[in-house]
Amino acid sequence: MSMRYLPLLLVAACTTAPPPPSEHHESQVFDAAIHRDAVDRIVTAALASQGAWTALEGLVAAAPKRLAGSPGYDRAVEWAQEEMRRAGLVNVRLEPCMAPHWERGSVESLTVMGGDALAVCALGGSVGTAPEGIEAEVVEVRGRAELAALGERAKGRFVFFNEPMDPTLRDPFEAYGRAVWQRGFAANEAAKLGGVGAIVRSMSLRKDDFPHTGSMRYADGFEKVPAVAISTRAADALSARLAAGEPCVLRLELSCRSLPDAPSANVVGELMGRERPDEILVVGGHLDAWETGDGAHDDGAGCVQAIEAARLLLATGLRPRRTIRVVLYANEENGMAGAHAYAKTHAGELGRHVLALESDRGGFAPRGFDTDAQPEGMAVLGAMLALLEPIGAARLEVGGGGVDISTLAPAGVPLVGLVPEAARYFDVHHAASDTLAAVHPRELQMGAAAMAALLYMVAENEATFPRNEPKPAPR
Amino acid sequence: MSMRYLPLLLVAACTTAPPPPSEHHESQVFDAAIHRDAVDRIVTAALASQGAWTALEGLVAAAPKRLAGSPGYDRAVEWAQEEMRRAGLVNVRLEPCMAPHWERGSVESLTVMGGDALAVCALGGSVGTAPEGIEAEVVEVRGRAELAALGERAKGRFVFFNEPMDPTLRDPFEAYGRAVWQRGFAANEAAKLGGVGAIVRSMSLRKDDFPHTGSMRYADGFEKVPAVAISTRAADALSARLAAGEPCVLRLELSCRSLPDAPSANVVGELMGRERPDEILVVGGHLDAWETGDGAHDDGAGCVQAIEAARLLLATGLRPRRTIRVVLYANEENGMAGAHAYAKTHAGELGRHVLALESDRGGFAPRGFDTDAQPEGMAVLGAMLALLEPIGAARLEVGGGGVDISTLAPAGVPLVGLVPEAARYFDVHHAASDTLAAVHPRELQMGAAAMAALLYMVAENEATFPRNEPKPAPR
Repeated sequence: MSMRYLPLLLVAACTTAPPPPSEHHESQVFDAAIHRDAVDRIVTAALASQGAWTALEGLVAAAPKRLAGSPGYDRAVEWAQEEMRRAGLVNVRLEPCMAPHWERGSVESLTVMGGDALAVCALGGSVGTAPEGIEAEVVEVRGRAELAALGERAKGRFVFFNEPMDPTLRDPFEAYGRAVWQRGFAANEAAKLGGVGAIVRSMSLRKDDFPHTGSMRYADGFEKVPAVAISTRAADALSARLAAGEPCVLRLELSCRSLPDAPSANVVGELMGRERPDEILVVGGHLDAWETGDGAHDDGAGCVQAIEAARLLLATGLRPRRTIRVVLYANEENGMAGAHAYAKTHAGELGRHVLALESDRGGFAPRGFDTDAQPEGMAVLGAMLALLEPIGAARLEVGGGGVDISTLAPAGVPLVGLVPEAARYFDVHHAASDTLAAVHPRELQMGAAAMAALLYMVAENEATFPRNEPKPAPR
Repeated sequence: MSMRYLPLLLVAACTTAPPPPSEHHESQVFDAAIHRDAVDRIVTAALASQGAWTALEGLVAAAPKRLAGSPGYDRAVEWAQEEMRRAGLVNVRLEPCMAPHWERGSVESLTVMGGDALAVCALGGSVGTAPEGIEAEVVEVRGRAELAALGERAKGRFVFFNEPMDPTLRDPFEAYGRAVWQRGFAANEAAKLGGVGAIVRSMSLRKDDFPHTGSMRYADGFEKVPAVAISTRAADALSARLAAGEPCVLRLELSCRSLPDAPSANVVGELMGRERPDEILVVGGHLDAWETGDGAHDDGAGCVQAIEAARLLLATGLRPRRTIRVVLYANEENGMAGAHAYAKTHAGELGRHVLALESDRGGFAPRGFDTDAQPEGMAVLGAMLALLEPIGAARLEVGGGGVDISTLAPAGVPLVGLVPEAARYFDVHHAASDTLAAVHPRELQMGAAAMAALLYMVAENEATFPRNEPKPAPR
């Protein structure tokens, strides 16, 4: 059993007795049951509607392609402001930042000379090739040990990083976390050894023909060689060809390029608190998305759930004591410009930020939340989540909440992330398969319901949610 | 919070202390942790494979259409025997029964005169129309109260039952249970009032164009009028037309018919117990399926999960003390011939049936199980399921287990059912959308893993699982 999972018993048990005394916070008895009726109203209102889905249809129609710096991102910003106003939010505004600007371009091909084309896409941030492309042999490595032993064999060749995500890990996010170094660092590792480019097996547990993009970075001091992902089936086929000892010269052509940083913006709107409007709960997702697909799950889902959560509180007349601030972040996928900008812009009020909630793991059926809250906060969250057992979202895990809100941790703001069912997420993550058709209206809406209920309880609760110790700033 | 859900706290708490004394069974301390390593091995082996999915591909290829009495069902029986042998089961055999035999035929249409065709399918068991069809006006009822007030207005007309499943109920199965009287009894209710046929809104929470079939029965003493389902979108369109006061004469043509009962069979195979082979755990699903779709979720998924669960125990070398008997039942959809035949055939050994487990709620990600076990059995199951928390399948609900195993309840056999995530189930249930593409390999396999682990723990455990009080026989 993975230690990542808090036994629910432990958390739930805390709901019936005061949490143990803490050196950091006053001990306080907390009975979440006072919020039961409100939570029931919120969930009922949520399930009667498909608000999140309708909004997602709108986003995907208005701005299916919305990578930072692109015209599509600007259209998404327009959509977001309009959608927030429609939901009844106030103080709807843009908070500007400068974001990286990378373009895929129109040429993207990888072929086996004398053989088939492989399903390929450039990794975000990769340099392109010269128009005539690159032709070279290829050498495969499965994991760090094989990479370390590669030596001279990489010289003048493509290096093919083919360590699959481990399907036996219970949590696909853990499998992703263990394999994704290949995507991030493949180009540098290939360049260090004199390789001409990096080819990475897509980060997916599914055997199919979709290449999955994602961000990579060049380290200083090494040549910038192109980096691409190929589909899991293409990776298996290429590996089989190499294992059979067949001659294997690959030809890569890419027209992607990096442009100067571009003006971008977070989109912000608020549901003002009834009694303590200067105490703030942030809820959000990221508005940018990879343009291989439509970013319906990643993170269109999180954006519409954040707005829908606030809308549900307005629709049910459950305006809480504290302010709910919806923040749709710029540039999560290939930078963190929006996340850093928010922390900087609001530095003076982070002491009054009570909690930050993000949804960025897809719009699948919610199973619960993860959090970096300290034990007393865990106990409170556990008690609150017990009220979400009827929609199966009562689970509480230890975790990081989300990339966009991570910049608030240095100020001691507790972070919470929605945790949906994960089996299908990496099928569509950063791929052409991340479309509206892969999102289920009721599952998406249940996530919004769970978020609305949790936000309400924390924002309404008489006692302020326990703060965290400040943490080191994220990179 | 619905009372159907046992608070997990209550169940989990029982794992750390002896269950309370019971009048029916000796109190016993049970520590499920002794099974932790075995469960981890089973789950790891499961996730490394896609055995259930591969088997389901085989079933759907061999026998996509397999309603009781049809040639397709016979092909499914052949497939099942072969698949059981391939999995390493022994004593693979057929246990015969006689099943109803209804045929859809090739003609199935419902049109608005002077307007569009409505997406329609006959309900299973319906009579057909004469070749020239039936033309009549239509009257709509939304719920029992409107039906009760209908009176003379039904005479000579189609009665259109248009009470939607209630999306605000937390559990879609409860919404189904409350609305499905329309499908079962619409024809009788229409006939009682002199109606010429029954048109039922499909049992689905999704707005789409798939009509969903399902069983209906004729009551004695009334005329047998045809009964059909129309898609949710067609139902909304028809309702809007009626609300607008537009003239609305419908024409129905159906060539479906009932034939004499046909020979059918359950398919049975065994993994013999290591020490107590005459103590039996049944695990199964139903092999028949509605032929509107391919029955991939309903209940191809349950069939392949039952076989895969046994295969996983063989593959991991974890042969338990007691026997696991896989039973794929005939004729769940429009009768219960297989279920009744099993109880009759094995009447003499039901006292040695320790537990029966069914998967018949789709192949979606498992969330836990439901059971009719009495409190001491609940406590044991709760302790066991805590070991499935890493795959999110630890939830325990009060419930019925499954239709096919319900005939074992009169003998006091505790019943358990797999409970998967339910949001998508009624989208595909009994409809053309119930295809392999709607099943996710990892979700399906996680269900098989959860079943294998639970079967292992109950079959291996030194103390025999507490029996239930005998219950009245199901209808």
